[in-house]
Amino acid sequence: MSAPGPVSSGEDDLIARYFRPLAHDPGALGLIDDAAILQANGADVVVTVDAVVEGVHFLPDDPPQSIARKALRVNLSDLAAKGARPAGFVLALALRRADERWLAAFARGLGDDSVAFNCPLLGGDTVSTPGPLTISITAFGRVPTGQMARRSGARSGDHIAVTGTIGDAAAGLRVLRDASLGARLSPPDRELLIGRYREPQPRVALASAVRSCASAAMDVSDGLAGDLGKLCAASGVGAEVSAAAVPLSDAVRALLAAGGVHLADLLSGGDDYEILCTVPPVRWETFVRLAAGAGIPVTRIGVVTEAGEMPRIVDEAGERIAFARNSFSHF
Amino acid sequence: MSAPGPVSSGEDDLIARYFRPLAHDPGALGLIDDAAILQANGADVVVTVDAVVEGVHFLPDDPPQSIARKALRVNLSDLAAKGARPAGFVLALALRRADERWLAAFARGLGDDSVAFNCPLLGGDTVSTPGPLTISITAFGRVPTGQMARRSGARSGDHIAVTGTIGDAAAGLRVLRDASLGARLSPPDRELLIGRYREPQPRVALASAVRSCASAAMDVSDGLAGDLGKLCAASGVGAEVSAAAVPLSDAVRALLAAGGVHLADLLSGGDDYEILCTVPPVRWETFVRLAAGAGIPVTRIGVVTEAGEMPRIVDEAGERIAFARNSFSHF
Repeated sequence: MSAPGPVSSGEDDLIARYFRPLAHDPGALGLIDDAAILQANGADVVVTVDAVVEGVHFLPDDPPQSIARKALRVNLSDLAAKGARPAGFVLALALRRADERWLAAFARGLGDDSVAFNCPLLGGDTVSTPGPLTISITAFGRVPTGQMARRSGARSGDHIAVTGTIGDAAAGLRVLRDASLGARLSPPDRELLIGRYREPQPRVALASAVRSCASAAMDVSDGLAGDLGKLCAASGVGAEVSAAAVPLSDAVRALLAAGGVHLADLLSGGDDYEILCTVPPVRWETFVRLAAGAGIPVTRIGVVTEAGEMPRIVDEAGERIAFARNSFSHF
Repeated sequence: MSAPGPVSSGEDDLIARYFRPLAHDPGALGLIDDAAILQANGADVVVTVDAVVEGVHFLPDDPPQSIARKALRVNLSDLAAKGARPAGFVLALALRRADERWLAAFARGLGDDSVAFNCPLLGGDTVSTPGPLTISITAFGRVPTGQMARRSGARSGDHIAVTGTIGDAAAGLRVLRDASLGARLSPPDRELLIGRYREPQPRVALASAVRSCASAAMDVSDGLAGDLGKLCAASGVGAEVSAAAVPLSDAVRALLAAGGVHLADLLSGGDDYEILCTVPPVRWETFVRLAAGAGIPVTRIGVVTEAGEMPRIVDEAGERIAFARNSFSHF
């Protein structure tokens, strides 16, 4: 029994202890209000939302810091692919129980990334669930008015580019699920692939190059093959991509050589969080120069073709590669 | 086996069929992009997020339309209490399975409210979960720069007001959980209380009166007693509220008279989604006039007192009412 007064519920305590330190933006109002204030500063606000579920998007025994980072970074990856600079995020956290050690590590991972990517926590909601841990993050970015990169601007003749390497995360998930596969790799290669699954590297530094050079862009989250299909559908174009040109890490090459996985599985596996974009030839040199300046590797993997053709990913003999599935779908 | 091409996954089909029709705002880009564009139009963007979980915030056999409405309306209630006009929302939906009938009804409820409250769907993420249905909505509103109503502006001498009636939803939940309690009520009273639990009525029409008149405001979601405590703590003030002045519906009065529930449980029960605000005496008449113009009943329930005093809710004898708990907390 307690008289009404300044309330100190378990929920409020959790928020004060673990999340208030992350809410350093004035618009967050110290997380003591019902809403946050996001100043657009004359820009367009870009909004993206991604939810991650235990057992679906991450594994129950993944480190809490990694889970936090992945939950935020999948959103930062979307913002980067849209050419937007991070402005902040809100968090909806459904927890089975208030495990303080787990929460402390989770908040630390989130806080470190929030600082590293200059993306402050603006608000949130913490609720209980009888089910799996579920984290939904809505992230905000800013772009100059009318300049958000879209999926729909690709034109025939544009170069098709991806950042980094493709297939690492899909390979990492397979290694986590099948120890015999991991045993075929050196420990550093194994760790690299698992790390790529657990902690995506959002290409935030490429945002301004995407905005100024790309005719269309998106991040590769559901698999390169399927995501390319989505970009082409949105733009009303086709594409011809050479599988041999798709950048692969040495670790993935080692796994392919060991025979444990097929290239087609990696090209449609998802969780890459690299940027897929199309760049008109006239802006290609500038794009490559800006990417180099940002320290982000970009590789030309193909060309946009006329509408009506289906996007093709071809092998070295020029034959279209068949995929068991194009991309990840939840249903 | 299918060649890569315009992808039509189950997930994309669901979104196209059920949610695209709700995405009528140009910034939603027809839900075919990775992000939405929210134009601030020179205003501050107010951001609020609320998650609802099956079995925690709603019951598994609640009608899908009601679940959708509640998920959106709890956010609209926050925006109204902050003095903001709705600008749009994004939805993260974690579903056990793609039950088309359920989804069609859910989307219809969401769409109807989206139109009724002029709050378009801007984007979303639909994922699978092995656990309970979980809906997280981040909603956006606009307020003139610097004018968001906060929890922290209450001053000694301000009137304390609430909209509508308090305790209906908490009573409705008890009736749903205990049929013998419902049997003490007339069918219309029972339906009214259950309806108040299932479908909150966000006080969107009061937003501009709150913005222009209230010194502090929040919505009552976790119980009047506890939420008043939070407002007072944020403002550094005390409060004296007369329980007899708290507006109650005839249905709740009937339930109290039947002896099935105590007033203290209803004053700390939550799910009211009414607005609690403080109004300086000099602006009280204007506030009452604007509220009447908006068709929203407001009742003065007490007065803000000096800092240092704990907020008191007193009975007719002037005795402080003791609460088993101040407000709902998930942990």
